[in-house]
Amino acid sequence: MSLIEPRTLKGFRDYLPETMIPRERLMETARRVYRSFGYLPIDTPALEYEEILTGKGGEESDKQLYRFEDHGGRRVALRFDLTVPLARFVAQHHNDLGLPFKRYHIGTVWRGENTQRGRYREFVQCDFDTIGSTSVAVDVETGLVIHELLRAIGFERFEIRINDRRMLNGVLERAGLADRAVPVLRALDKLDKIGPQKVAEEMAATAGATAAQAHDILSLADARGSNRDILERMQPLVAGTARGEAGLTSLMQILSAMQAAGVPESRLRLDLSIARGLDYYTGTIYETVLGDLPGIGSVCSGGRYDDLASLYTKDKLPGIGASLGLDRLLAAMEELKLIDGRRVSAPLFLAYFDEARLNDYQTLAMRLRSAGIGVEFYPEAKKLGAQLKYADRRGFRHALIIGENEWQAGKGQLKNLAQQSTTEVPLGEGLVEALAKAIGQAS
Amino acid sequence: MSLIEPRTLKGFRDYLPETMIPRERLMETARRVYRSFGYLPIDTPALEYEEILTGKGGEESDKQLYRFEDHGGRRVALRFDLTVPLARFVAQHHNDLGLPFKRYHIGTVWRGENTQRGRYREFVQCDFDTIGSTSVAVDVETGLVIHELLRAIGFERFEIRINDRRMLNGVLERAGLADRAVPVLRALDKLDKIGPQKVAEEMAATAGATAAQAHDILSLADARGSNRDILERMQPLVAGTARGEAGLTSLMQILSAMQAAGVPESRLRLDLSIARGLDYYTGTIYETVLGDLPGIGSVCSGGRYDDLASLYTKDKLPGIGASLGLDRLLAAMEELKLIDGRRVSAPLFLAYFDEARLNDYQTLAMRLRSAGIGVEFYPEAKKLGAQLKYADRRGFRHALIIGENEWQAGKGQLKNLAQQSTTEVPLGEGLVEALAKAIGQAS
Repeated sequence: MSLIEPRTLKGFRDYLPETMIPRERLMETARRVYRSFGYLPIDTPALEYEEILTGKGGEESDKQLYRFEDHGGRRVALRFDLTVPLARFVAQHHNDLGLPFKRYHIGTVWRGENTQRGRYREFVQCDFDTIGSTSVAVDVETGLVIHELLRAIGFERFEIRINDRRMLNGVLERAGLADRAVPVLRALDKLDKIGPQKVAEEMAATAGATAAQAHDILSLADARGSNRDILERMQPLVAGTARGEAGLTSLMQILSAMQAAGVPESRLRLDLSIARGLDYYTGTIYETVLGDLPGIGSVCSGGRYDDLASLYTKDKLPGIGASLGLDRLLAAMEELKLIDGRRVSAPLFLAYFDEARLNDYQTLAMRLRSAGIGVEFYPEAKKLGAQLKYADRRGFRHALIIGENEWQAGKGQLKNLAQQSTTEVPLGEGLVEALAKAIGQAS
Repeated sequence: MSLIEPRTLKGFRDYLPETMIPRERLMETARRVYRSFGYLPIDTPALEYEEILTGKGGEESDKQLYRFEDHGGRRVALRFDLTVPLARFVAQHHNDLGLPFKRYHIGTVWRGENTQRGRYREFVQCDFDTIGSTSVAVDVETGLVIHELLRAIGFERFEIRINDRRMLNGVLERAGLADRAVPVLRALDKLDKIGPQKVAEEMAATAGATAAQAHDILSLADARGSNRDILERMQPLVAGTARGEAGLTSLMQILSAMQAAGVPESRLRLDLSIARGLDYYTGTIYETVLGDLPGIGSVCSGGRYDDLASLYTKDKLPGIGASLGLDRLLAAMEELKLIDGRRVSAPLFLAYFDEARLNDYQTLAMRLRSAGIGVEFYPEAKKLGAQLKYADRRGFRHALIIGENEWQAGKGQLKNLAQQSTTEVPLGEGLVEALAKAIGQAS
């Protein structure tokens, strides 16, 4: 029989242990942070009715959708994000859930997009949202969660960029461009790429904006000075517009509360030019950029929306949330050498010498596991050199070696594989303490 | 615009928080146990080339496969288990991985099967395997992992059923039926359903077995007496057959080592009639049955196989592993009322009164979270009754209430929602200790 070539699909990848270990750690950190704020876990199916998913993320999303006919002749599709399933979920269950409803959802999504460096067709999203409240307290909390996430993962240098969609609206309204918001903002969005001159030209061409109008709009992107300076500069540009003033007040409250709750000012940056989710967000907008790797873009983004589920229910369901880009963050951590590449799940390696002593090894290993010390027991009674080579390749730092002499003397050899040093440990009473001390010191 | 009905596909389900919380807890327990034995996490894509997945699980699996053509015209399919992807993974990467390779994998799988009570078309599997060793030490360890899993989840009454495929072969060989193993074992597999008389008749009809031969085979299923009694009865039935004797020795070693390592004899049961994975397993076989709910079948099953990846590589890759039936176990726990239905991720509910105090509430909440006490802060400054009703419905046991008077006095009201009692706690120094004590006592 001829062999089938073992391979993954283009745009898909296997996670080997050295990558899966930090990936699991990221997910665990996210869960811990979300729970500490009271967000509840949910899960939804990977497959949904096609009609639930189409037309929600724009033409591009529709084109990228993995869709097919199932065994029962239903048109089905794989979810491309966790927000559309959340909308369907909340519309379907909100009477059972009760409002406000705070949920987190860590799940795989699929997009058949063109593959580029670091972009895959399957990736994990890590979302949190609060549905059913328009209180600014939730906007503050959303920002605090983003800060806690990054901090708990271990980042020191990062910047949370904050905007409010209503600021844009206020400026547009005062500039007399409220009816041409879409082409104006589309032009503004290109500022980083093409510069202010070309943006003004595009605004003139597509929205008929005068030079003065373009100047006002472009002032949104002027990030000189402190957050306070920016807010002061903006005040006259939104004055007298209900939405603009509400946005300004809300931004002031958010900045004030986040700083009061312990977020350093250096990590908070008003950036009135961010306009992500143009047609989607209606209030606060968040992006998060790593100080050491700004080029990879935002690793945690989100914002406030007026109505999540209007396609599925007549109930009004406002909300706010954000999504941690787990696999993008993992790629960043690889690039920043924050991942050590070790392939160990348990801190201690236990060598195996004498098959007649199998029961003693297994008993000892279980005793240590019960005491909270994970143990990998090598399964074959091979030469010590081969066993230690395996342990070393995996990245173990500590190996416990017990041959027949040691069993009889009641004393084992604890080898520090990094330092190539060996100490004696008692096998009876005192073993757990001795190991805990040695392992705790090294890791 | 007409609304789209919010609904899930037949055979698929949403996990609401009250179910997702214990489900996440199960996964966390499994990960903790797997890691304590040194198993490493991996992940593989949900979608594979169709040719990787077809023809591996039999005709039934092929029929149930979700398959379609992707954007690039490739024939692709959703994985139906984690074992075939493991085979492909190990064949593809084993030079990088090194052997022995111990992995765990928690992942979703899809099968378009007929839906019955408690059976879904999408479910999570929770597998662990050791590849590249034929040592009985791994068979012992596999049994110990199963025991630890069930124990750590919280079960007291359960039975790990153990068999060795070679025992069956030995008995068949001595009975002169080695060349008719498949029809004989197919008949034996029906013992529970149709009884010994009908099994003997089927063996006569499909394998030409005599009454004496059928009697020997049926003695495999005779579970009277202790494990030792059973082994003694089996000795003459396999004597002189190399495989039968090897199986007997291996079973004795496994039982002995597991008991030495602390598994109570009452949880270990030789059951020579279990023959799961007829064409697949070649040595030790494990099943696990709950003492309080045997009817739901095995919740953790597995066994030894000679060669995992022969379809993809010429390298011989023997292994042994098992799979925790996570969603089946969850259903069992629901039926046994082991799930409390609370919908809380954080132990403390913080009520919200005075919008002017938003910064103080947020600061206090972050202080408690930093000290390890999770806090859900209610987002709207509503009447206390409405807030406490929300907290009570969610299942919170403790609510911290701070109005303007309390802020000024530096003292909050800690309400125990179950006991309807209230105590005073200091808001400054001593708050964390007071809350930790109150919460610790109640949960």
